[in-house]
Parts: sequence; C-alpha cells; structure tokens
Amino acid sequence: MRVSVLRGVHDLVLEERPVPVPGPREALIRVTAVGTCGSDVHYYEHGRIGDFVVEQPLVLGHEPAGVVVATGAGATLHEPGTRVALEPGVPCSTCSQCRLGRYNLCPRMRFFGTPPVDGAFCEYVVLREDFAHPIPDALGDEEGALLEPLSVGVWACGKARVRPGSRVLVTGAGPIGLVAAQCARAFGASEVVVTDVNADRLAVATEIGATDVVDVSARDLAGTGYEPDVLLECSGVAAATGDAIRQVARAGRVVLVGMGGDELTLPLSHVQGRELEVTGTFRYASTWPAAIDLAASGAVDLGRLVTHRFALDEVEQALTVAARDSTVIKPVVLPQESRRG
Amino acid sequence: MRVSVLRGVHDLVLEERPVPVPGPREALIRVTAVGTCGSDVHYYEHGRIGDFVVEQPLVLGHEPAGVVVATGAGATLHEPGTRVALEPGVPCSTCSQCRLGRYNLCPRMRFFGTPPVDGAFCEYVVLREDFAHPIPDALGDEEGALLEPLSVGVWACGKARVRPGSRVLVTGAGPIGLVAAQCARAFGASEVVVTDVNADRLAVATEIGATDVVDVSARDLAGTGYEPDVLLECSGVAAATGDAIRQVARAGRVVLVGMGGDELTLPLSHVQGRELEVTGTFRYASTWPAAIDLAASGAVDLGRLVTHRFALDEVEQALTVAARDSTVIKPVVLPQESRRG
Amino acid sequence: MRVSVLRGVHDLVLEERPVPVPGPREALIRVTAVGTCGSDVHYYEHGRIGDFVVEQPLVLGHEPAGVVVATGAGATLHEPGTRVALEPGVPCSTCSQCRLGRYNLCPRMRFFGTPPVDGAFCEYVVLREDFAHPIPDALGDEEGALLEPLSVGVWACGKARVRPGSRVLVTGAGPIGLVAAQCARAFGASEVVVTDVNADRLAVATEIGATDVVDVSARDLAGTGYEPDVLLECSGVAAATGDAIRQVARAGRVVLVGMGGDELTLPLSHVQGRELEVTGTFRYASTWPAAIDLAASGAVDLGRLVTHRFALDEVEQALTVAARDSTVIKPVVLPQESRRG
Amino acid sequence: MRVSVLRGVHDLVLEERPVPVPGPREALIRVTAVGTCGSDVHYYEHGRIGDFVVEQPLVLGHEPAGVVVATGAGATLHEPGTRVALEPGVPCSTCSQCRLGRYNLCPRMRFFGTPPVDGAFCEYVVLREDFAHPIPDALGDEEGALLEPLSVGVWACGKARVRPGSRVLVTGAGPIGLVAAQCARAFGASEVVVTDVNADRLAVATEIGATDVVDVSARDLAGTGYEPDVLLECSGVAAATGDAIRQVARAGRVVLVGMGGDELTLPLSHVQGRELEVTGTFRYASTWPAAIDLAASGAVDLGRLVTHRFALDEVEQALTVAARDSTVIKPVVLPQESRRG
Repeated sequence: MRVSVLRGVHDLVLEERPVPVPGPREALIRVTAVGTCGSDVHYYEHGRIGDFVVEQPLVLGHEPAGVVVATGAGATLHEPGTRVALEPGVPCSTCSQCRLGRYNLCPRMRFFGTPPVDGAFCEYVVLREDFAHPIPDALGDEEGALLEPLSVGVWACGKARVRPGSRVLVTGAGPIGLVAAQCARAFGASEVVVTDVNADRLAVATEIGATDVVDVSARDLAGTGYEPDVLLECSGVAAATGDAIRQVARAGRVVLVGMGGDELTLPLSHVQGRELEVTGTFRYASTWPAAIDLAASGAVDLGRLVTHRFALDEVEQALTVAARDSTVIKPVVLPQESRRG
Repeated sequence: MRVSVLRGVHDLVLEERPVPVPGPREALIRVTAVGTCGSDVHYYEHGRIGDFVVEQPLVLGHEPAGVVVATGAGATLHEPGTRVALEPGVPCSTCSQCRLGRYNLCPRMRFFGTPPVDGAFCEYVVLREDFAHPIPDALGDEEGALLEPLSVGVWACGKARVRPGSRVLVTGAGPIGLVAAQCARAFGASEVVVTDVNADRLAVATEIGATDVVDVSARDLAGTGYEPDVLLECSGVAAATGDAIRQVARAGRVVLVGMGGDELTLPLSHVQGRELEVTGTFRYASTWPAAIDLAASGAVDLGRLVTHRFALDEVEQALTVAARDSTVIKPVVLPQESRRG
Repeated sequence: MRVSVLRGVHDLVLEERPVPVPGPREALIRVTAVGTCGSDVHYYEHGRIGDFVVEQPLVLGHEPAGVVVATGAGATLHEPGTRVALEPGVPCSTCSQCRLGRYNLCPRMRFFGTPPVDGAFCEYVVLREDFAHPIPDALGDEEGALLEPLSVGVWACGKARVRPGSRVLVTGAGPIGLVAAQCARAFGASEVVVTDVNADRLAVATEIGATDVVDVSARDLAGTGYEPDVLLECSGVAAATGDAIRQVARAGRVVLVGMGGDELTLPLSHVQGRELEVTGTFRYASTWPAAIDLAASGAVDLGRLVTHRFALDEVEQALTVAARDSTVIKPVVLPQESRRG
Repeated sequence: MRVSVLRGVHDLVLEERPVPVPGPREALIRVTAVGTCGSDVHYYEHGRIGDFVVEQPLVLGHEPAGVVVATGAGATLHEPGTRVALEPGVPCSTCSQCRLGRYNLCPRMRFFGTPPVDGAFCEYVVLREDFAHPIPDALGDEEGALLEPLSVGVWACGKARVRPGSRVLVTGAGPIGLVAAQCARAFGASEVVVTDVNADRLAVATEIGATDVVDVSARDLAGTGYEPDVLLECSGVAAATGDAIRQVARAGRVVLVGMGGDELTLPLSHVQGRELEVTGTFRYASTWPAAIDLAASGAVDLGRLVTHRFALDEVEQALTVAARDSTVIKPVVLPQESRRG
C-alpha cells in the first residue's frame, strides 16, 4: 500500500509498504478520509512537539475515517464493509487512569501520528476494534474523519459544563474553535461569541451559529463588556488568553484547548477573586457517541469545515496550504484518490 | 381589585379586595396572564395537597406574568412599565438551604397559591422585586407566565444532567412533560421519547420535537427496547413509573417530577444492579434566566402549549376544562380581560 | 489442589482439582484468607440470587487475599512472593461502561463465586494481574481479604459524598454496615449513627467509632429526631429502609447498599419534597487504593470484624455459623490451614 | 467602647466610639477574641490590597469571636449570653451569586476590616444574626475566632475534593497552610505533605498531622518524587507555586489559596497534558457548620496555632510580631483584656 512518510523536517515521501495484518480483536480499515491538524503541520515544520520528537520515519494523520475490510481473531464488533470513524488513540485499558474513565491520560496511550506511533496518511491501518466507531448513513467519510476534532469540542464543552443559560466565549475561529462554538450551541449555550483576527474565519463562525463575533485585531475584547460564564480558549495565543480570562464572570470555567507554549501568564487575582476554574484539555475520552449524534442530527455541521481536499501524494500541500490561503479551515486527505491536480 | 377566591372544595368566588401596597424592596405588579396548574385543580377539587390544607379563603394561581406598576422603598431593579415573569416562591434567603443555593428547599418558603399564601388569580400582586424577572420583547405575556412550568423542566434536566449524547424518556405528555421534552432537546439530548395514553398529547409531543412517541395504552414500553440514560417522570402514575424505571440504562438518572401519591414501588434490584440515581424535584431554584433564554431564542416553544384562555371570572372553567376536553394542554387566565364568552 | 465446591443447595464438597495455570498478564495466587459474605450464604441456602442460578458446580468466595506464586506471559506488575488482595471482578475493559470508568457495571464482568465463574474457596486462583493489589506490611492476610467489603463502604461513602459536616445514618450493623460506618468516619463525617436490632452488633458499632447507636427493636428511629444528610442503608430490610429514608434531611443522599428483594416502597412525597438523591450500589470500581490506605493507616479497623476462622474443609460451618451465634460478624476461611477443629 | 483604628499606613490609634446598636435581625456582640491575618498586616503596612484602598479611618480584624449581648428587632436566633463565632462577610442574599449558593462572590458583600467596612478590633460589633454561629462548649473563644481561617481550609479542601486516597501537597506552613493541612487530614487524605522554608513552622506541621514535610530552602521539591492529586497552595510565592504545580498528578486539582500578586506563570503544557483543574479561592461560603464540627471533635486543633496574645491597645504589636519572631503562627487580639505587658 502507499504510505506518506515524514522522514524529517520538510521531508515527506510516498512509500510502498505491506498492508498491515489485524491482530486479535483488531480491525483492518481501508482509509477513505483523513483530516489534517495543526499538530501534523507542526511535526512537518519542526520535527517535534514538546517532548515528542520524530526520531524515525513517521506517518502523520490522526483524523481518519474508513471502511472495515478484515478483522483479527476474536473480533466481533464490525462486519467487513462497515464504514467507521477511527478514534486514533488506544490506551492500555488497565492502568488507574483507564480504570477511572480518564483513558486520555493513560501513560501508555498509543496515538496515531505521534512518535513513535504511525498515523493514517496511508491506504490501510489496523486499530483495536472498539476504537472504530460505525458512521451512520447521514454522514459522509469526510464528516466521519472530522468526528475527531468534534470530539475535542465535545470534551471541552463537557469540562466547561455548558448548558442552557451559559454565555460562552470562544477565542480562535480555527477548526477547533469552530467545532467548539458549534458544540457550545448544541449543549444549549444561550450566547456564543467567537473571536479571531481573520475576517474569513469569523464569517464562518457566524455562519455556523455564533451569536456574535469579535475581530480582536480591530476591537478590544474588554470594550465589548461581554462577561462569559465559559471561555473555550482555542487560539493558543498567550496574550489573547490573558485578556479573555479577564472577561470571565464569577465562578466561570476556563478551558484551555489551544496549544500555546509551555507557560501561560494567568491573571491570578482575577482567578482567585472570581473563583474561576481553569483547566486544560488533553484530547478526549468517550466522546465519539455524542459526537456522532451531534453530527448526524445536524446540530453540528462538519461538512462546512472541509475547505480543501488532497490525494495521498499531496500530503505536503495539505499541510502547507493554510499558510498560503486565509480561507482554509480544514484540508482533508483522501488516501484512495489518485492525484487530483 | 377583583380576586378569584377559593373558599372551599368546588367553591370559587370573585371578590373585591384593595390593591396591595408594595413593601420595602417589593414591586406591585398588574397581572396579565396566569397559567393554571394541576395543583390548582387539586386544591379546587380536594381542598388540600398532602399536608397543605385550605383552611381559610385562598387565592390560587402561581404561574403569573404582569407589568410592574409601582415599587416599594429601596426597590431598584425595575422601572414601572417593565413586563415581568413572576417567580412565585419567595424564600427566607437566610437559612442554611438558602445559603447553599437550594432555596427551593427553604422551610420558610412562601409560595403563591399554597396555603396560607395567596396566589395570582387576581388583578394585582406584590412580590419581592428580585423575584420578578423582566420578559424580553420576543416573549408575550402568556409565554412569560409559562416560564414557571418551563422552570420545572429546566430544573429536571439539570438534575438529570441531560447533554448531547443523552437518550431521554419523558413519561407523560401533559404540560410538564411537554416542557421537559423541549428542555431535554434544548440541553442537547440526542433522543427524546415521550409516552402518554392520550393521542392528542402525543401528537403535540411530536410537534414540539420528540424524536419518538409511545402510546402506552396501546403498546408496551418494554417492547420498544428503548434504553434511556435519563427518565423524566412527568405522569405521576405509579405503575407507569415502575415500568419506565425498568427501562433505564446503567448509571441512568431518574427524575421524579410528576406528583403521584405518597409512595412509589421502586424496582430496587434494577436501581442497585444498574446504579441508577433516583431523585425527585421540588419546584426549582435559579432557573428563570435559563428559562427566559430558552423561550426567547425559540429553543422552547411555550406558546404552543396555551390551548385555552379564560377571564378572571372564569377561573372555575379554567380549572375544569381539562376534564372535559382531551385537547387541553395549558389553560391560561387573563385577569385584565373581561368575560370572554 | 483442594477446592470447596457447591454442587447444589446445602451440598458443599471438597474436591481435588489441578492448580490453574496463569494466562497472559495473569497471576497465579496462593489463597491465604477469604472472607465469607451473605451472598455466599445465599447461594448455599437457595442455589441462586435473582437471575444468577447455580446450574453447575460452583466455587464460592469472593473476598480473597493471597500470595503471588507465578505469573503468565507479559505480566509485569508483581514479583512472586508479593502478598496481594484480590479484586474479585474482572470486567471486559473495552465496553462503554468500562471506558467511562464504571467498570462495575460492565455487562461482561466475570465475578468470583457468581455463576458461572468460580471463586476463591480453594488453594489457588488465577487473576488478571492488575486486579491483584499489593498488601502493605501493616496489614495481615485477613485484613487484606476484608478490603473487599471495605471497598463496598468506600464506594457507598463516595456516592453519598460524605465529608466533614455530614451527619450519617447507617442502618444495619452487619459487616457492611460496620465498614460503612468506619468509612463514613474516615471520610470526615461529623456524626455517624448506626441502627440494628442486635445489641452485640451495636456494641461493636460503638467500638469502631459510631457516634451513637439505636436499637430499633426497642426504640423508634423517628423518635430520635436524628436528621441525617446521608443514609447508608446496609440492612436490606424494607420496612427499616422506608423509616430511615423518612428521617433524611433536605437534599440528603440515600445509598441503598443492602440487598433487600426486588422492590422497595419509596416514600415518594418525602423524596420529592426534600429532593433526596436515592441510588443503589453494585459492588465498586477503583476502590482498592483508598481502601488499602484506610486500613493501613488504621483509619478503618478491619481486624475487629473477623470473629471466626475456618479451614477449607469447614466452609459449610463458615457459611452457617452466623445463624447460630449472634456475635458473628465476619467468618474467614483460611484455605492453607488444616482442619482447625 | 474602645476601638483600634487604622488612620493610614503605620498609623493605628485607640479611639472611643459609641457602642453600636443592632438593627433589625442583627445581634450586638461583645468581642472576646480576634485573630490577626496577613491581610490586616498588609493594610497596616501598605494601606491597600489591590483595589481595596484605605481612604478613611478603618477598623481591621475579621476573625472574631464574642458573646451576644443584645439583639435587634425580629432577631430570633440567639439568646443574650450565647458565645458565637462571627462569619465576617455579609452578602446581599438576593443577587444571582447569592441565590446560587456562592455568596462569597456576591458583588455587594460587606466584609469586616475591608474598606470601607469596619472590622472587629474593638469591644463591640453588630452582625446579621445568621452570620453569628454558636460556639460549642468544647471550644474556647480563641478557637472560635480561628474558625475563620479554618473555613478557608474547609473551602479549599471542598474545592479540591479531598477524600480518602487523596495525596495532598500543602505549600506554605503559615496559619492557612496549617489549617489546610489539618483539614486535608480531616477530609480523609491519605498523605499530606507540607512545604515551607521555615523549620519552626514545618515542625508544627508535623505536630498537627502532616505525613511528611519538605524544607524547600534545603531540598528540591521535584527531587522528592512526590506526585500529589491535590495541591493546596498557601504560600503566595509565585516560584514555589509553579514548581508545585509541576508535581501534580494527572487529573489533579490545584487550589490557589495564597495571595501572591496579580499574575502567576502557569505551566500550561503540564496543566493541559495532565488535565489539571486550577482554581482560586475567595473566602468561603457555608463553611462554619463543618468548621465547628471539625474543631469541636478535635479533628482539627486550632488552639495549637495561637502563639501570641495581645490586648486591644496592642494591635500594632500583634500585626508586627511575626516579622520579628519566626515562631509566630497566629497572634490573637483579646479586646476585653487590659494591657498585658
């Protein structure tokens, strides 16, 4: 099969490798669509994210959908032909974190496209069968792939306890901000205000249901007087984060979703004086069922986020297009397609 | 002013009384619409509900909306002319329940239309100003009145932790069941199945967003195989409640909203074996802001529930029409109207 | 090895069976002490508990401690010679309940001494290695065995949210009531009142830290005026349960631990009017670490509960002694001992 | 009566003022003991804390105990002669924060010794009667006064969800750290490690129940390998806080109690990668009942914290002694005493 391999910084090649063989209770899946993510871009540009370093050839891609084509011994969950969304991180299922239901914090987690575990920019992958979630007919393959970023939003809204009556601020209108904003609406939030510095993205935010948007390149957030109960920080921009936290109402929740460096200057007196709860998210756990429901019912529109499509030999373009085109939201790689250009 | 007074069982009369005078931090409100409730009917029919006995003439009605016409000393929240929905129970605000935010459990609560506290089937009432909630322009007076039953639904969904991914069963499609079902949808529930034995009501349930309905006079609930995470019991029918609880999935939440006598036979082995959480609701606390948001945004349609309207001298008809007409959902009394018939 | 086998009602025999062989990631454990439990007695007396029917020879015993003597392929957690307490139920670790951290609700749970899974009244057992918890030196084997009932108490107190300031009522001073009462104290409860009809047991309750006891055969619970925030129902006696629930304060939590038949008459108006939370427990999840800490620190005294000891060929006596002797709390079987009598 | 008045930085004088008169539902209390707090010292040294500026003469002191000597109209809770601990902040009881049970976040809070509200360094104060909590006989007046700092610890442990099994790190062994550590033990924590740079204070920490102490002037916290579930930050030292947060285990809770400037550098990647929950505390709400129970039962030893005592004309010494004497923990002012020197 064809595999897109990252050999080093700015060094992506297409290789031929054998189709993998599903082990016990695993499924072999033909990959039909894979979203690209900022972390894929980061590995391509820098060869590392924090302590995770690309030291040997690595396959990126952790937002896959596909079709089950075979199953290993003891597998019972899926028939061949079943379309599935892949939850790309498989924990050990036996440590204390896993037992407590926090399997995203499992120290033995093996996560697609994170050194040294290969991802899904290839034609076939194997996965523990219970991490392949059937996609309902209402959803296409690309939407199936985007259940992964949607899961990030579901997880964040859950941590923030968004519900009817909540006033939510989403900082950053990239793919994660846009799913977070949609999730917030789907969790019943009364107001969802989205900020960014990119007018194209803010336009999409409005389109997908933000009740208001603020272009913080033109207008001071503090000046809006908006006092949210919940901040879903999806920009990863430290200065914006501090400003946003200062807006949050008493007893508000701040969920730091965006990756923004090792440290953050926290407005301590505000956090204490208003008893804010500040937490970060690390992926998600047990989110696919709700994410599937939200996408299938139309409460969240994932298709709107797919702005660009690439074939397997175009992964490099997929990872670099956002730097050249401000209308990019989510480029998707279609591993079964021949070159599209 | 004119006041509809319950003097005893089946004994309602219209009296003239002086317009009340607002005390410190109180508002005087001209009542424009008052929903009727099953408990009003129960007092009219039986002269008591449990330990609450009508021992002296009582004004019923606890679902009021109106307009502020005057305010007492030290009142600052409302200008005369402000349209308001009335939260009909005023707690002491100083006991341990009040301090903990559970003011609905305040043992010194004074609640409209509950002996010995008079309610709102009259032209004017006074209320502590912070229990009068301004009604946005998007909502009419009748919808303002129905924020009270909506609050019951908001409270129940909060207790049940309804959210995206939740599968909800609502037993009973009366006014409370219908607001509960709408709330469940607004809290993001993926499925909301409503049961009743009245086809008219089930038709309304479908209309307001139930994903499925079951006429349990014709079809066994167990036979549906539906396994909800959440049961919002709104029928008050003991047998139906037991059957419904037996359907609830592992770790599910059962919220007993419907009033159904002093005792309930609980399927203990099911509650234990599945670790269900069973709780009852007693009114609500701090629900008006979310209820207003839900109604004003259109997430919940209160207007659809108002099926019949009566003038102040027709309270008796308002309280008895449901027994004669299966299409009745919520009769509303309009105290400023002259006789309509 | 020698195995005590239940062949039918009142039919326990000692058999010779081969020592089991640990599979992948399993440990082989020489059993040193096994608590007896009311459910063991129930299988012995009735051959069934609800839907669980003894249809083929069954080994009872699910409160074991022992020593690791060998490990299977891939096992890494324990060295031979490690003393361990056995968590006796092994879930699938892959279903949605397991993923959510509620592995006690796993529908594929395999639990010691529950048809058709054999238990620990024998010399050796195998267990998934992560369900064998090392016992600190401060604890003996019998105390290691009693970490299982202690887990029931930890789980119940967690569900009840016991903490400083809590007033707790424990109904029933059997082994579970006595561990529940000790747990409640260890969780910081300000008052822990224990009821029973057995004066011997109430004396033990006082000894292990109950702040008060009530002999409900002599004195009406309602007459005490005690108004707990938390009821830990450990008697399984339906009438006592209803009386106890009626005592519970506003917003109180009721945890139904005792097994008491299929149904329970719930005082509905009390549950609603006070917004009680009623839940049942089904075993426990992730409780061994806290249970070990509580026992090792001395916060909970497990040794005091062991009143009688029996050899492996005396399991029948172990299961029947409680019926003959009111001072029995917890009989323990010591499978490595020769006949004691 | 005699009143100790802060007229400006380093300017404390004793004045005569009239004894105040209790208003409706208020109590007049003869003050018997008042703890001194770092914030009193800060106002004395700097004339302000953040936005709170001493612009007119101010009476400090917000940790008082006393005796009810008279009551205002409508007061019903206390008989004259009742010994009471004073909860020193009275909220409006009507705003949304108050309604939700978060009255510590009430924007209209009037708090003793915080501009422009006078405190308790005087012979008599008036207080809303429900904020005066009867002191049980087991507790002396000084212990009654120290229920205020104990409340800070109770609030912090509640926010941190400390319970059996918890491993707690308390940074800072000042009065708040020492009550927090004791609270953590009382909430059932399995381990409570306390850090400071003052050996005297660490000795007291050991004495009051810390399971271990670390002198971080001599030894690197990271080097201990301690991985707490809960960090109760009571030092207010920014660098120490960052180091401590880096130790916290996956899904751990960080409660920032110590006041330490406007900003804090948060180890973001750690907070995200481990999904820590970081929150600050602002005083407390509804903590006196549990605090009284903890002190009265002996679970927390408040008396041990009182190291120095001063008369009303010695408030200046009380506020400055800590700077001169490393053994000071909590100086207490006794307003009814004549000069002690």
